[in-house]
This record gives sequence, structure tokens and C-alpha cells, in this order.
Amino acid sequence: MSATAPTAASSAGNAPTGLEDTLAAAAGAAGPFGALPPARRAAMLRAVADVLDADADALVELAGAESHLPRGRLRAELVRTTFQLRLFASLLDDGGYLGITIDEPDQAWPTGPRPALRRMLVPVGPVLVFAASNFPFAFSVAGGDTAAALAAGCPVLLKAHPGHPRLSRRTGRLVADALGAAGAPAGTFAIVEGDEAGRAALVDPRVRAAAFTGSARVGRLLFDLAAGRPDPIPFYGELGSTNPAFVTPAAAATRGAEIWAGYVESFTLGAGQFCTKPGLLVAPANTAEQALVAALAGRAGAPLLNERIADGYRAGLATLTGHPGVRVLVGGSAEPQPAPGAAPGPVPPSLVTTTAGELLRDRAVLAAEVFGPVSVLVTYTDPGELVAVARALDGQLTATVHAEDRDPADAALAAELLRELTERAGRVIFNGWPTGVSVTPAMTHGGPYPATTSLFTSVGTTSIARFLRPVTYQGLPDALLPEPLRDANPWNLPRQVNRAGQPAG
Amino acid sequence: MSATAPTAASSAGNAPTGLEDTLAAAAGAAGPFGALPPARRAAMLRAVADVLDADADALVELAGAESHLPRGRLRAELVRTTFQLRLFASLLDDGGYLGITIDEPDQAWPTGPRPALRRMLVPVGPVLVFAASNFPFAFSVAGGDTAAALAAGCPVLLKAHPGHPRLSRRTGRLVADALGAAGAPAGTFAIVEGDEAGRAALVDPRVRAAAFTGSARVGRLLFDLAAGRPDPIPFYGELGSTNPAFVTPAAAATRGAEIWAGYVESFTLGAGQFCTKPGLLVAPANTAEQALVAALAGRAGAPLLNERIADGYRAGLATLTGHPGVRVLVGGSAEPQPAPGAAPGPVPPSLVTTTAGELLRDRAVLAAEVFGPVSVLVTYTDPGELVAVARALDGQLTATVHAEDRDPADAALAAELLRELTERAGRVIFNGWPTGVSVTPAMTHGGPYPATTSLFTSVGTTSIARFLRPVTYQGLPDALLPEPLRDANPWNLPRQVNRAGQPAG
Repeated sequence: MSATAPTAASSAGNAPTGLEDTLAAAAGAAGPFGALPPARRAAMLRAVADVLDADADALVELAGAESHLPRGRLRAELVRTTFQLRLFASLLDDGGYLGITIDEPDQAWPTGPRPALRRMLVPVGPVLVFAASNFPFAFSVAGGDTAAALAAGCPVLLKAHPGHPRLSRRTGRLVADALGAAGAPAGTFAIVEGDEAGRAALVDPRVRAAAFTGSARVGRLLFDLAAGRPDPIPFYGELGSTNPAFVTPAAAATRGAEIWAGYVESFTLGAGQFCTKPGLLVAPANTAEQALVAALAGRAGAPLLNERIADGYRAGLATLTGHPGVRVLVGGSAEPQPAPGAAPGPVPPSLVTTTAGELLRDRAVLAAEVFGPVSVLVTYTDPGELVAVARALDGQLTATVHAEDRDPADAALAAELLRELTERAGRVIFNGWPTGVSVTPAMTHGGPYPATTSLFTSVGTTSIARFLRPVTYQGLPDALLPEPLRDANPWNLPRQVNRAGQPAG
Repeated sequence: MSATAPTAASSAGNAPTGLEDTLAAAAGAAGPFGALPPARRAAMLRAVADVLDADADALVELAGAESHLPRGRLRAELVRTTFQLRLFASLLDDGGYLGITIDEPDQAWPTGPRPALRRMLVPVGPVLVFAASNFPFAFSVAGGDTAAALAAGCPVLLKAHPGHPRLSRRTGRLVADALGAAGAPAGTFAIVEGDEAGRAALVDPRVRAAAFTGSARVGRLLFDLAAGRPDPIPFYGELGSTNPAFVTPAAAATRGAEIWAGYVESFTLGAGQFCTKPGLLVAPANTAEQALVAALAGRAGAPLLNERIADGYRAGLATLTGHPGVRVLVGGSAEPQPAPGAAPGPVPPSLVTTTAGELLRDRAVLAAEVFGPVSVLVTYTDPGELVAVARALDGQLTATVHAEDRDPADAALAAELLRELTERAGRVIFNGWPTGVSVTPAMTHGGPYPATTSLFTSVGTTSIARFLRPVTYQGLPDALLPEPLRDANPWNLPRQVNRAGQPAG
């Protein structure tokens, strides 16, 4: 097999002219940008955050016009976005993320004399980020994937989402200009537009990793392209999740009203357009239905992000409501398509119900993600069914348990559920709801396929690991070592010397 | 897309009966084995190491008979193998590999109240390990991949290499019995034999990751199977490398004799059957040839591992020597195939030469890995060619520079080479040789494709990261948290609390 190497010689690809220039610039920026001291890149990330904050009014206005999302929500999302950039800056200031490990020579090493070995993580090279539609700031141009890749020292090619093109261009200009003004090499950041350009970039040898947040269908298509390259690259796809929530009998009896209200708030938040929307509520039969119907009655809902998402929602809802094992409790039909050019109207939430037995018979339909304001109430009559449903599910971003841990029998049931859900989800929640993903060191936003296509999180500081690879230097004279590995430790980075038990990374 | 979930319900696959039992047992063992305290698994790894050491005489005898490798080398390899198991045990005793991160609730968190989040790494589930032929101990049944997966808490299905079937069975029995006696659940370790069974296991939903060391052809075939599953899994393939070594003009002038001698020792070691064999020596024209020919004259060589490898070597050597840009310096024809049943004879080393210009014109042939005792002397007349060759190469496990760092001009050339090679290799060596991979915390044995199919090392303690994924628990009462995350820290593991800058993992 003749693999295509990431070399200057072989990299003159078949990309269209504009894209070719962008790729060449990114490849050229990779070396100098990746070699900067982490503290320099931290300053660049803060500069990006500052210009976005300064332009908040205009950005939020543009985002609102293009995404139909409420201004308040968008303003909060921009806060999250710039906070995220600054959090990665603090990770860079700390420097521990480099995983620097020094093994000094050891003549008595049991397998033979150990040479001088010094290891650190280095950036993988240019990263292609596919922006999502549902977070025009936090998972788009200057979102988490961009922040993590830039923090790692990787130039970013940002495939803009067609749902907010003007916002993408404005944000992209601000990011590129702020990076340039802060001293980043030309080519460190660029916008790529159009599906064809996105696919061409994904298979270009200069692109060394890709990140994606979106649908399972598109995500799998892109994953297959990345894996099918002559030189496969990591494709970090976040493809979606049903985010099941499980309610024990004791929880339903003790706190039912609170749980049903929390569920309605969570699954209707943002018109159900969150990858962490609870799409299944597994609850005891004859406990939740009446309260849920009452809580949902008369809710007007909100417009969906764009026509493609509205189409997908209509199709998914029709599949659910058309299933013989499903009964509609609220809504059940999406709004008719608006006339061309007309502003989209609000889509009221829907709730359908089925039984645990039905779900176990046809989980491919009944446990599938439907992006938008619908959820499925799954009823059970025996707690054994609760566990059986947990065991039947695909990989999830999140899974939630509502239980009464002071009741020994209920705590035992909860413990069994939590064990099963740990095998299937990246975040396991107790007596809470999955929407609202906090950006923190301990966050995991990822899970077994199809939640994600890798073992990594895409939210939180550890998401930087997606864009780093280890290199070990053996026997280098001090002056030829990269600065982080030199004896004098000129950048003052944390290092582990002659240890056996350092963290994996 | 209907993904197949790793669930008990869906897991009754189409595997043949024996394999089906093995897979079911591994799936059953995953939960209890993964939930053991790391110190318990450390004791199990030490128990495995002890029984292998105790059986060393019989194991080495069997390995020698099946692999044609010298007894002394095999004994040293067994030492390495049991050392490796004990090194992972010490990693488990430390516990830092779990990357435990605790974010306490924070009402003032800038993006909204932060919930209680506790994160740790958990085992991915059953791992399929494809054994290599060239290290019957260290990269086979009880080798590095097995040690790393067991350390992580993953049951192992070991696809035995057909090159040493009796050794594989004996080692496998020892491993399984030692694990069982130390209290590991039934199904924690099993041998799988036959290519068909290996492929069937690789696409079985119960297998959650795979590791492989071998040829690029077979490795890519298996990578494609893993990536093509309804639910793709990580495939950690180590596919090979040419391991180029670059000699600057000053190094050739100052230490030529020492360098040429070291090169011959390194590329002929183990009959060239190491994935770190230097397959290219890039040296100034008219410096090395005479000394290399003299050093190789009369070397008898050693038998190759098996007939498949001998066939591959004959074909690779013929392609090289048949190339119009190549001139044979030593040897050039592999021994004729021995009569069926006859013991294989020694294969003398070969050395061929070409120019940097030729290599740049046809690197697909001239820079390809040929497994066995041959290497290519690539001559250059201008130091610019040295850098051009470095830039033209595919991903590598290792790359080596011989230079005189006290000579400012030569140090500058070395620095440029080292920068280029860092982009293309996982281990960069100065004034040394790549053979002999020390098992240490700072080792990296991996590199950009085709060296490996992932961003991970397969040797050294950080290779455990291949078999772990993060899970975050949100809002769990203390008693329902896994032990490592409870307030009292009952297993006394290192944890990071409320930090922004923790290592990636």
C-alpha cells in the first residue's frame, strides 16, 4: 500500500484553488505555531476571547437573525464560548497538559541500560473542525473544538455551518485578525465553506485530525472518509445520543411532581435542539403521564434552527408516531412547512409513550435520537424492565438516574442501573438533568459509539488530548532538545522525572 | 444507521461455538475485572510474571524451536516480558493513571452554577490482541498489549500468531491459570487461534478495542474491518517503519568508523526482524560504502522466523535489487527456499545503495520497509538533500540523527533535521540506534501513519491509555460513587481537585 505522507512534496493536492491556498497556509503555520511557548498561545486565546466579547452585541444580533435562537440564550452562549477560550489559556499557563516525562539514563534498568529518554506531547498538525448548527458560538467558529486545537498548537480550518454563514464569516474574521495581531503565523486559522470543500479538506494529506458535531448520518459519512484515507486520521465525531433518564419506583412516589417538571424543562429547552436532550424517560406505569400532559399543555414552543433540521424533525416525529407500539400524548404533528421566505413559526413540543417491552422489541426506532422538541415516555411495571432497558441501549453522551438513595432497596436498584449506564455513557447523572454541559476539567462529553467515534471528550479541558501525540527524544544534547525538555526548564513547565506511575496521556 | 450496541441482548453474535463461548466469557468478566481495585490487578500481573519466570526454561526451549531465535535473546526477551508486567503493576499501585479529577460544585462558575462532577478513566471492555511473530514473548501472548489491557481492567482475547502455536498455548495456559488463581473472573484471558476466528472476534460487538503488531498489509486490512463495523472501535495497529538514520557531513568525517559499525550491528540484529531496524542510512557520498562492505563481509546471518517472513523478505529484496536506481553492495539474493521439512538456513545480510535523488523520485519503493536483514545506503552530495529526504518520508516509529553538536554549522543542520523528524516520528534518536526499545514511562513506540494507526504508544506505561475511556459522574451521593471517587478515597488514589491545568488523559 502506498500511503500518502504529510510532506511538502506530496501535499500539493487536488483541492480547489482557494482551498489549496488555505491548506498550504495551515501546513506552513503548523511548525511555528506549534513551537510557541504555551504561555504565548494562552495570550492568543485570551486575545480572541477579548475581541469576541467586545463585539458581543453585533455577534448576538447576527446569530439571532440566522439561528432563530433567543438573544438571551445566545448572549449566555457567547459568555460560555469566551470562557472556554480563557479556560484553555489557563490550561496552557499550567503546562501540565504536555505530560512531560523524563527518564534519566539508568545502567541498572532490568531490561538493559536505559538511555536518556524525554517525552512530551506535540501538536498533530492542521485540524479540520466541522461546526455545528445548534450552538452558533460554543460549537461553531470559535467553539470548543477550535479552542482545544489552537491550545494544542494546531492550525484550524473551520468548516462553517451553512445555518449561520454571516455569523461564521464575522466570527472567523475576528478570530483570524486577533490571532494575527497577537503574533500567530499567517494560516493559523481560516474558514472553509461548502460541503464539497469540507470533504476535500478532510481527505487532504495536510489535514491531520478532524472534529465534528452533528448528525449520525453525516458524522458516519465523514468518519468513513477519514478512516478510508491512504493515511487514516483521527476523526473525533460527536454523533448524538438519546440521553435516557431512568426513574425508580421510589423516586416517582417521593418526588414525582418535581421529576416530571424537570424532565419537561430539560427536553423542551432550546426546542429540544441539544445533543444532551433527554429523549427517553423510563418511568413506572401510571405515574407520569397525567402530570406531563398537563405541564406541556398550551406550550407554544420555539422555531427550529433551520429548514434542514425542521425536515429531519418532521421525519423523525412521523416515524415515532407512526409506530404501532407508540401512543401520542401531546402534539404529534410538526408544523407544516412555512411558505418560502416566510419566517419559521414556533414548533410546539410533542410527547409520545410506549412500554419497556415495546422498546426492547424495536429499540432501533424507539430509542433513536430525534433532534427537536419530542421525547418518549417509556413505562415499566417491573423494576427488572428498568435495568433491561438500560442494558439494551447504544452508547450515549449522558444517562440519568432518578432514585431515592436513602431507601436501601431503591439504592440497590440505582447502583445496578449506574453500573450498566457507566458501560454505555460518558456522563452519568444522579437526580439531575443532562442539558447544560458545564465546561470544566472534570467534564466528559463523549461516550461509546454512536455518541462519539473516539474515546475522548469534546468538552472540557481534557478535550485538548485529541490534538496531541507523544514524541520521545533519546540521547539529545541539551541545546538540541525542545525548550520544554531542557535541563534548565526555561518555560517552567511541570515535569515528572524517573517515575513509574505517571498519569496516562 | 442502526448501530449494534455492546449489550448482552444484542451480543449473541454469529461467532463459531468455541469463539462464542470465549467472547461471552470475556464480556461477562469485563464488569467484575474492571471494578477491582488497581492494587488487586497489580497483584494479578505480578502473579502472571512469577509463573512465567518459573517456567522460563521450558518456555525458552519451546520458543527457540518454533522461532529459530537464539536462546540467549529469547531469555532476555522473557525478562523484558515479565519486567513489563511488573512495571504495569507499579503503575497500578500508583493509581495516577486513572486521571481522577474532582470539580466541586461552584455557584460562581462563569457559565452558570457548576454541579458536582467527578471524572475517572474506566476500562473500555474486552480487548482483542493480535500477537506478533518476531517477539514470541514481548509482543505475543503475555506481551505489552496484553499487560496494558489487563492493567487497564480489560479482559483479553489473544489471537495467537501461527508462527509459535505451541509456545502460545503454553504461555496462554500459564497466564489464564495464574490470573484465575489470583482471583480474576473466569473469561479474563483466553487464546483465539486462526485468522478467521481473529476476524470474527474483531467485528463482534463484545470486543471494544483491538491492538496489533505486524505488517502494513494485514494491519490495514484489520484496521478497515474495525473502522467498518456498525459500531467502529479503536484499532491500535503498529504497522511498521523504515526507521531512517541521517548522518551529517561532520559526523561522517569525525566518527565515521563508529557510525558505520553501529549501523551494521543495528540493522542485522535479530536478522533485521525488528520493527525498529534502520532500513535507510542517509550518509555523505563516498564515505560509508567501503567500511560497510568490509563490516558485512563474511557474515553468515541467521535463519528467519518462518516461511511467510522468508517469502516476504525474498519479494522485498527482489523489488529493491531489481530497481534501476539501486546498486547491490553486499548479498542481494536471499537463500533459496529450503526443502519442505528441512530446517531453515541462515540468511546473510544484504546492503544496497541508491542516491538521495533516486529516493526522492521513487520513495514508494526505495523507502518501503523490507522486513529482514537488508538496509539501503542513501548517499547525498549536498546537505540540502539530507533535509529533503527527511521531509519526503512517511510516518515512522523512529528517526535517528548522527551529528556533531559542538560544531555550530552541523548543530544547525541537526536542529533542522530534528524539527522535520519530530513531525514524522514517535521517537527521535541522537547519536544512537533505534533497535532496543526500552520499556519505561517516557518511551514512545508509535508514530504517524503507517507507523501506527493511532496517536498512542504501544510500549511503555502510557500505552495503558489505549484501553481506557473517561466517565464523569454528576451529582452522585457518596455511597453510589465508584470507590476511587468517594470522599474518603478508600483506595488512596491520587486525585486532582478543582484544578484547571491537569494533564490531558
